Amino acid sequence: MQLKNIFIIGAGNVGSHLAVALAEVVNIVGVYSLNQNSAKELSKELNVPFVSDTSSIPACDLVLVCVNDNSVLEVVKQIPSTFKIAYTSGSIELSSLPEIENIGVFYPLQTFSKSKELNLKEVPFFIEGSNEEFVSELIELASLISLNVSKANSIERKKMHLAAVFVNNFSNHLAFLAKEYLDENNLNWEYLKPLMIETVNKLSEVSPYEGQTGPARRNDTKVIESHLSELSGTTKEIYQVLSTSIINTYQKKND
Amino acid sequence: MQLKNIFIIGAGNVGSHLAVALAEVVNIVGVYSLNQNSAKELSKELNVPFVSDTSSIPACDLVLVCVNDNSVLEVVKQIPSTFKIAYTSGSIELSSLPEIENIGVFYPLQTFSKSKELNLKEVPFFIEGSNEEFVSELIELASLISLNVSKANSIERKKMHLAAVFVNNFSNHLAFLAKEYLDENNLNWEYLKPLMIETVNKLSEVSPYEGQTGPARRNDTKVIESHLSELSGTTKEIYQVLSTSIINTYQKKND
Repeated sequence: MQLKNIFIIGAGNVGSHLAVALAEVVNIVGVYSLNQNSAKELSKELNVPFVSDTSSIPACDLVLVCVNDNSVLEVVKQIPSTFKIAYTSGSIELSSLPEIENIGVFYPLQTFSKSKELNLKEVPFFIEGSNEEFVSELIELASLISLNVSKANSIERKKMHLAAVFVNNFSNHLAFLAKEYLDENNLNWEYLKPLMIETVNKLSEVSPYEGQTGPARRNDTKVIESHLSELSGTTKEIYQVLSTSIINTYQKKND
Repeated sequence: MQLKNIFIIGAGNVGSHLAVALAEVVNIVGVYSLNQNSAKELSKELNVPFVSDTSSIPACDLVLVCVNDNSVLEVVKQIPSTFKIAYTSGSIELSSLPEIENIGVFYPLQTFSKSKELNLKEVPFFIEGSNEEFVSELIELASLISLNVSKANSIERKKMHLAAVFVNNFSNHLAFLAKEYLDENNLNWEYLKPLMIETVNKLSEVSPYEGQTGPARRNDTKVIESHLSELSGTTKEIYQVLSTSIINTYQKKND
């Protein structure tokens, strides 16, 4: 085990979850975050020191950069290039970062919220690195917290991230819109939960193509029109564009 | 128990699931479907007779009409009005049907596919009826197969159905688009499954408003632009309209 002592940068959703999970299997030597309050909280939770700037990173085997995509480059540039560095972003290409000796990617394909506990065992981790030895070390590290670790190059990782945006970010927003609509109508959105669970469970047995149901699947324009008349603004636009896409998907097949 | 002998009309996704579940607790006296092959299959599975037209419905306590929304009126009109009738549609208002003595709604808020087994215990059933006694009988019947039975009027039911379209039909279609995109790029969509499961699990602890993550949540225009450049056609349009909606949702809050 090469990467035994790890310094964490970023104490947001991803950083705090990874730090907690890694603290079970390796030694977290400290944390730093642009947001000092988050860093203090996390350092307290892990009982490790926090440092107030990147020039004070203590000796360690890996600096794990868990910051937002648009801060990765800036943060990596601040870290002395003698450190081994990995970052957790889905969309940043490795080639867009400084060419230091040991730089890599440690990308968990998952949605993290601080307030939601999470078991990382089944979370896919995608690993990339500036050299094979470092890749092996990162794979070894990821395998301590997950059973689902793969190599992926920057292009593959970016495409996985894009697909993840559809099934997580967008699906979650649809749940938000559904809840907002039910709230406005004084109806209890708890009723939707068994349906949401089954929507996902079903995909373990049937493909999303095969599992599609509902008015757009049947091209039931009467129900679709009636729903559209209930909606307005962006929610209506979303209903329309998704219904049209479903109708076209199955019409193509019928032609 | 009043509704002991039940005749099923419709042997599609909803009809076949309800028939199988009801057969465990009441007596299914026969099935009829516009699609004779489906009716034959279901009658064989349940070991009950199928009839070839609605004028041959045998004596029973309830005719349960499990047909598509746009066939409900036509089918109900064909059934002698001496029968007690209930239908399973989310969007058809009770007042739009003939005023017979005992007519009601037996609506399960769930997605049904023939090829996917399903436990109905947690599925919400929404009940409505032309008179209180019949409502009570339908509630009693639904309670034999589900622990989540409520009264709902036609307006409430329609709104629940509309919300369900967002969290099921549209979410499933997003999964289809994500899978299509990964297939085209020779990437394994199995990697998305833990994420999809967590997307729903998370909602048991945090609201969808609070649980939102991703580039649009952070208004990360660089990543959004990069994703859009990867996409085309309807998929691109869907990415755009959903990202804009997420950005606006959180911008509103910041104002």
